[in-house]
Amino acid sequence: MGLSIEWRNPLRIVSFCLFVMMMLTTSAVEAKVRHYKWEVKYQFQSPDCFRKLVIGINGKTPGPTIIAQQGDTIIVELKNSLLTENVAIHWHGIRQIGTPWSDGTEGVTQCPILPGDTFFYKFVVDRPGSYLYHAHYGMQREAGLYGSIRVAVPDGVVEPFTYDYDRTIILNDWYHKSTYEQATGLSSKPFVWVGEPQSLLIHGRGKFNCSSPTIGSSDTCNTTNPQCAPYTLTVVPGKTIRIRLSSLTALSALNFEIEGHNLTVVEADGHFVEPFVVKNINVYSGETYSVLVKADQDPSRNYWLASNVISRKPATPTGLGILNYYPNHPSNYPPSTPPTGPLWNDSDYRLAQSLKIKAHPSHIIAPPVETDRVIILLNTQNEIDGFRRWSVNNVSFNLPHTPYLIALKEKLRHKIVQPNPNATASNAIYRLKFNSTVDIVLQNGNSMVPNTSETHPWHLHGHDFWVLGHGKGKFDPMEDPKKYNLVNPIMKNTVPVHSYGWTALRYIADNPGVWAFHCHIEAHFYMGMGVVIEEGVEKVGKLPTSIMGCGETKSLIRP
Amino acid sequence: MGLSIEWRNPLRIVSFCLFVMMMLTTSAVEAKVRHYKWEVKYQFQSPDCFRKLVIGINGKTPGPTIIAQQGDTIIVELKNSLLTENVAIHWHGIRQIGTPWSDGTEGVTQCPILPGDTFFYKFVVDRPGSYLYHAHYGMQREAGLYGSIRVAVPDGVVEPFTYDYDRTIILNDWYHKSTYEQATGLSSKPFVWVGEPQSLLIHGRGKFNCSSPTIGSSDTCNTTNPQCAPYTLTVVPGKTIRIRLSSLTALSALNFEIEGHNLTVVEADGHFVEPFVVKNINVYSGETYSVLVKADQDPSRNYWLASNVISRKPATPTGLGILNYYPNHPSNYPPSTPPTGPLWNDSDYRLAQSLKIKAHPSHIIAPPVETDRVIILLNTQNEIDGFRRWSVNNVSFNLPHTPYLIALKEKLRHKIVQPNPNATASNAIYRLKFNSTVDIVLQNGNSMVPNTSETHPWHLHGHDFWVLGHGKGKFDPMEDPKKYNLVNPIMKNTVPVHSYGWTALRYIADNPGVWAFHCHIEAHFYMGMGVVIEEGVEKVGKLPTSIMGCGETKSLIRP
Repeated sequence: MGLSIEWRNPLRIVSFCLFVMMMLTTSAVEAKVRHYKWEVKYQFQSPDCFRKLVIGINGKTPGPTIIAQQGDTIIVELKNSLLTENVAIHWHGIRQIGTPWSDGTEGVTQCPILPGDTFFYKFVVDRPGSYLYHAHYGMQREAGLYGSIRVAVPDGVVEPFTYDYDRTIILNDWYHKSTYEQATGLSSKPFVWVGEPQSLLIHGRGKFNCSSPTIGSSDTCNTTNPQCAPYTLTVVPGKTIRIRLSSLTALSALNFEIEGHNLTVVEADGHFVEPFVVKNINVYSGETYSVLVKADQDPSRNYWLASNVISRKPATPTGLGILNYYPNHPSNYPPSTPPTGPLWNDSDYRLAQSLKIKAHPSHIIAPPVETDRVIILLNTQNEIDGFRRWSVNNVSFNLPHTPYLIALKEKLRHKIVQPNPNATASNAIYRLKFNSTVDIVLQNGNSMVPNTSETHPWHLHGHDFWVLGHGKGKFDPMEDPKKYNLVNPIMKNTVPVHSYGWTALRYIADNPGVWAFHCHIEAHFYMGMGVVIEEGVEKVGKLPTSIMGCGETKSLIRP
Repeated sequence: MGLSIEWRNPLRIVSFCLFVMMMLTTSAVEAKVRHYKWEVKYQFQSPDCFRKLVIGINGKTPGPTIIAQQGDTIIVELKNSLLTENVAIHWHGIRQIGTPWSDGTEGVTQCPILPGDTFFYKFVVDRPGSYLYHAHYGMQREAGLYGSIRVAVPDGVVEPFTYDYDRTIILNDWYHKSTYEQATGLSSKPFVWVGEPQSLLIHGRGKFNCSSPTIGSSDTCNTTNPQCAPYTLTVVPGKTIRIRLSSLTALSALNFEIEGHNLTVVEADGHFVEPFVVKNINVYSGETYSVLVKADQDPSRNYWLASNVISRKPATPTGLGILNYYPNHPSNYPPSTPPTGPLWNDSDYRLAQSLKIKAHPSHIIAPPVETDRVIILLNTQNEIDGFRRWSVNNVSFNLPHTPYLIALKEKLRHKIVQPNPNATASNAIYRLKFNSTVDIVLQNGNSMVPNTSETHPWHLHGHDFWVLGHGKGKFDPMEDPKKYNLVNPIMKNTVPVHSYGWTALRYIADNPGVWAFHCHIEAHFYMGMGVVIEEGVEKVGKLPTSIMGCGETKSLIRP
């Protein structure tokens, strides 16, 4: 789907919009099993005008949007048509209750899918809201293998806000070097850093300066390529649009702004938010928001959609799209200078916005007032045996080649140990008492660049958690919990820990399975910034053999 | 090993040479099991001064040379440390008698080796001679995953020629684009051809013109990088050196010449040749030769080693190395213009050289005088459903994801049909009567470029074959067999079929297993130019489960 509308024909746009709205309306009352057939394959694409190899789904990046209604069963029949590479896809924000083997996390919940193989992901979308999917194997997400999931409320249920129609926008950053080159650099001695992304994409489209001296032969970059025509969002004056906004950046924290328009934040990671109005919104990799935008400005012109890098010193130009007021021509560039976003290093601004996000008054799910266990996770960057790594409590995480879920459920001879604070690298896991309440405090520390502390968006699989608090400096386990918001904390699956700050979250370990919890920056997880958490694995049903076939799980397959 | 000797210190060179010779001498009487531990991994390398990602073995491309003696058992413990890619390595020229599962041909004899997995290749090197190994999965060979195997004669056995010492030179061509980009182009509609290689490598070293306008940022190309210092072969005046010369080009047919020195051809693909002297030698991808070179020229200077493209209009500069007369400084460039090779389109010259290669009089293995079956394989290029493909008898070959050896041996429900001349694409096989004699006549046809017929070097796995004849034009099944050489035909595993010509070969189907027979040009095999041949599969021993785990073989694995 997406919103890449043909430019030149306004009639086409209107009929397209009618078609989309009709489809959405009818789909909401359709059958409860939604079966998708996807083929994953390499293709050449020029998302930012620079031609490179991407991994597409049915020929597209971003891939097809999954459109469903709460309670539906999704079946994605995924055929791997890559030549020599395996694949796995994670359904980001879907809790996989009863289907932990469908989480799509290579090394944690499944073996990778081999070239030529077809894997069936089957799961229930049990909550309405805006979610994502993306590759969860190596660094394949960065190759373009991602998309969105939109789950409607059940028939007769009303959301606590109104809008005329909705659209999905996935923000991204984009590298010209391949994921192999990036990964090889990250694991080289000495460390080779790929640098800042070349472009910011708004729903798969950006614009690289093709006359830059850093690119080679001119046939690889062409600013007139329709594949990099700016993303255009057409609005009808006076109407209110819901934008399902998310980020799947490899590296960048982003700020999104629509020139001259306020954004009313109404949803975060599938939960209704006490509405608040912002001029622009910070979105971290792995987060989704819904924002309402009223087309209430001068309708005689178009406006900029803009994404800007925050939290790191920007070296990537603003990502631009067009808010098109119907019936202006969608390709008319706005007559103004695009928004440049807030100061990149204004961490107070970012902290303040994080603190604004609270549950909607009529949709509060109260957290348990007490916790059974507190786990503090200190995030640092280290040099280990000459390799640049990220560590959590001084342990840098390595994904094993026997997936945890299978190893633990099938009691394979597999090294399962509690993290050892003296260890430097490990694939150890946290085991939680089933149904217990656990607090996790993310404590930010230094990177290896002096006086630098990066923002890390942490994503938990299999769960939503309550965000109890964010704070500056070192977490005080005696004092800070007294300030926790236990009244109306928002639930999320991804939350940032700000520079030199801390973030406290709570959840109930009530979803049998094994779940990754990690920084959603692709390079950071690859460099060790993650942990794996087990709960009630003995309650997990019979594992499908389709998730097996790698590491020590080969011998478990029976006809 | 190879011969990349330190430049600046002649003493070092001498001691290095002594060490190598000592090692070779002692290794010939060492233990009979040679165990190698290899790790396959991405790394940055600049073989032709242009920095790109290569697949190395233990950090090297070309990989380590396997040095063994006839009858030894080789164990290669291969760890796949690629991030998301599988791998498989073929032992080119080793017949794998009794171990067809160690042939390393993905889709034919094994499933690919997953990241993190360690696979044990175990086989006997049952004949002396010069052989190769290389990736046999997707187009990974082109990423630098290749090396050589050198098998000495048994103690007390004397070869029919003498020399003072020997060296290995693998010729190659080299692309700057990744194998993924190449493969994606080849399977795109419309077809995207990667073009001619950027460089020719002499044992892993070439020299690209870094000031070429086709390359981007200058940090990726540096002509002073020691990784692309020319390959240097140091000779002692008056001595005779044996060069074990081979080609593993992706595309190019090559001619190799040593300025001012004759080459005496004494071995081809592990078989002793009736010696003949040439000024230069044509080497096709997959072939190995031994040539003797006497250092009998003016010792006060160095000489060029040169490889030049033949059979296709050259668009790749001459590959250059240095023949260094000790004690001249090895980095002294020869004072002359490098050899430019024969005329690229002189097919008579190439045919004549092919016809010169006959078995050594005292090492003739007589072929059966009669054959049981004749298979004529017509090589053509076609357009199939809009895809550019190569076909054999109008059938374009697709590798299946369930390896033939396992499918046939374990009688899996697997489509096994004889090739249908009306089919356009197939994964069908030829089934031969065990111990029968079969003739294969390769008949060259047109490519899709008008009036063009490319040279195809065909490589047979699991066997050597007698080369009975080469001819021009259309093979005449009544007349041409009368001219077959049944007296002293050379045995080989790789043989070219020349432009618009035919090549006839004979072998005995006496090696139980399933064997690929295909054009050794990487792109041609990928585009369908191959067949698979089965013989006596019921006689194959119990298959190791380590080759299973893909396609329909998953369920066959038992603990």
